[in-house]
Amino acid sequence: MPDAASSPLAPGSTIGILGGGQLGRMLALAAARLGLDVVILTPDEDSPASRVVKQTFVGAYDDPAALADFARASDAITYEFENVPAAAVEALIGLGARVAPGPKALAAAQDRVAEKQFLASVGVATVDFAPIETADEIPEACRTLGHPALLKTRREGYDGKGQIWIEKQADEAGALAAIGGKPAILEARARFTRELSVIAARGADGEIAIYPLGENHHEGGVLRRTTAPASADKATLEQAERIAAQIMAGLDYVGVIGVELFQLEDGQLLVNEIAPRVHNTGHWTQDGCAVDQFEQHIRAVAGWPLGSTLALARVEMINLLGEEAAGWAKLAADPDARVHLYGKREMIPGRKMGHVNRMRGPV
Amino acid sequence: MPDAASSPLAPGSTIGILGGGQLGRMLALAAARLGLDVVILTPDEDSPASRVVKQTFVGAYDDPAALADFARASDAITYEFENVPAAAVEALIGLGARVAPGPKALAAAQDRVAEKQFLASVGVATVDFAPIETADEIPEACRTLGHPALLKTRREGYDGKGQIWIEKQADEAGALAAIGGKPAILEARARFTRELSVIAARGADGEIAIYPLGENHHEGGVLRRTTAPASADKATLEQAERIAAQIMAGLDYVGVIGVELFQLEDGQLLVNEIAPRVHNTGHWTQDGCAVDQFEQHIRAVAGWPLGSTLALARVEMINLLGEEAAGWAKLAADPDARVHLYGKREMIPGRKMGHVNRMRGPV
Repeated sequence: MPDAASSPLAPGSTIGILGGGQLGRMLALAAARLGLDVVILTPDEDSPASRVVKQTFVGAYDDPAALADFARASDAITYEFENVPAAAVEALIGLGARVAPGPKALAAAQDRVAEKQFLASVGVATVDFAPIETADEIPEACRTLGHPALLKTRREGYDGKGQIWIEKQADEAGALAAIGGKPAILEARARFTRELSVIAARGADGEIAIYPLGENHHEGGVLRRTTAPASADKATLEQAERIAAQIMAGLDYVGVIGVELFQLEDGQLLVNEIAPRVHNTGHWTQDGCAVDQFEQHIRAVAGWPLGSTLALARVEMINLLGEEAAGWAKLAADPDARVHLYGKREMIPGRKMGHVNRMRGPV
Repeated sequence: MPDAASSPLAPGSTIGILGGGQLGRMLALAAARLGLDVVILTPDEDSPASRVVKQTFVGAYDDPAALADFARASDAITYEFENVPAAAVEALIGLGARVAPGPKALAAAQDRVAEKQFLASVGVATVDFAPIETADEIPEACRTLGHPALLKTRREGYDGKGQIWIEKQADEAGALAAIGGKPAILEARARFTRELSVIAARGADGEIAIYPLGENHHEGGVLRRTTAPASADKATLEQAERIAAQIMAGLDYVGVIGVELFQLEDGQLLVNEIAPRVHNTGHWTQDGCAVDQFEQHIRAVAGWPLGSTLALARVEMINLLGEEAAGWAKLAADPDARVHLYGKREMIPGRKMGHVNRMRGPV
């Protein structure tokens, strides 16, 4: 007998997604290809995902009535961002919902200290770090970790928000207040030569599938572009695959995960952070791989067999931030550019409006 | 100054689609990738397309109030099937709507006699034919066209419905009654060696783009599979491209068109029929070409530049009819199969439930 909690959902079943942004939108489009319906729960009246789904439940993530309606409409539930309240996921599970990835992944991804402790527990290396509760703990932590060190809020913060570099002793006193005074983590600087990421998936049956590595370039804490498959020697590939596999096994993971990596001069990979969801550095798979990360995540959540992660093309994924999206007409005319736009109404500076996958030839 | 009637619609604009079937659904998914919103008009309360669009107007195609609401919500309008009432399209144009393909294409595609007369007028060959108004015209027409000959209703009918073979003189008397007694067309049998199709597109600015040929296999009047790119010599490719270009120019066409072809023993191509829309024999482009027929059609309708029709892979597209769709789990586990399901609720025998694109290697 198949386990009811992980048996494949037949076409016509409904996937519930917490969140209405571009990741939810692209997940919904992938689900539709497979004949699955999608409903979302989001606090926003008009969200990118809401225009491509069967039904939108507009409500706060911690609104019990909205959660109950959403759970009733969904045969399986996932989320498009890791800062969905853990209590919401617990409430959904309490209502009998099948949620993937599970609460273990969410807990690890929501707290930067818990994340690093989890990674250490499964034998995956990170930069050295120290939990910071109060500002007076910073000087001692800096003596251990050295300058510069990066102070980040333990919770929330993304795309470079909620973090500050402590370059020298004089910066130590004011740093915690500058990021809001909440519990934080201090991280040693990684002397990395490049940033990579590995996008991987684990199915409901424990099967895993790993995409080729992406090499990433950030500006001001925001991803600008990913080049994939990244050139990498066998030792690097094996390290990345081992890291992904150990993290997913340790979290009893179901779904796609994004793992950001620093590569050091000697080739060693350190994990920077994990995202228990489809990931911006995996957008290249839409035009570069047999089955992309969005369909892969839906397959895992729906209990379907995972798809092929084979790379078919070399791709440079470039984020379109703010006004850059106004260049859509020129991009659409470029035969080597595949344009993906998110349906966001306002071009706010720095906002992720879309991306373009530039085709760079066969693998 | 760009012509307002053909200037590109910015992302965030709304495409209106008449019809809610699988073609509308796949068009809507393609529009979403480009940041365009979609609304549909369909008489069905729950249609495959309705679950992936911003808004569904449920109403008859000839309901003036529904048409007005639909037109008001749409920045450009297209249709997913050629049997939308011509009066509906005229009403939409009367309301100031931008509709593509235009009424000329619809008129040619809705009446099999008008279609063949149009094709002759632009120098494109078809089988010999005779219009049939009454049953007593059939014997004389059969003397000219020979036996067997194919009697089809002039209007409507698809997937082999509304047609009957007249094999011998004894079949002549009852044939018209057997297909409903309405005005018909009698077609000589084409002694073709294979069935091909050419999927092509024409932009609002007259730019054209033509996909590689597909080779098609029908069973019982229904498409079973398309193999593409079809092997074809230079003369065949040139004929097909000339045919597509002449048809599109003659119709002032904007959008994707499907042209079904018979290839005779001497290599000559005859046009069997034209469909002023995305076409089942073009589904292979989803996984085989740089930009697929659905995005291409949306680009044309929205006044965007056409995309690249370059084939990247050899594909065998297989329709999933009725209960065949129950094999989704096995197909999903096949690394060379890309599964596309339409979200139809009931597996009615012969009904197109989905298709699978089998990847057959690089071009």
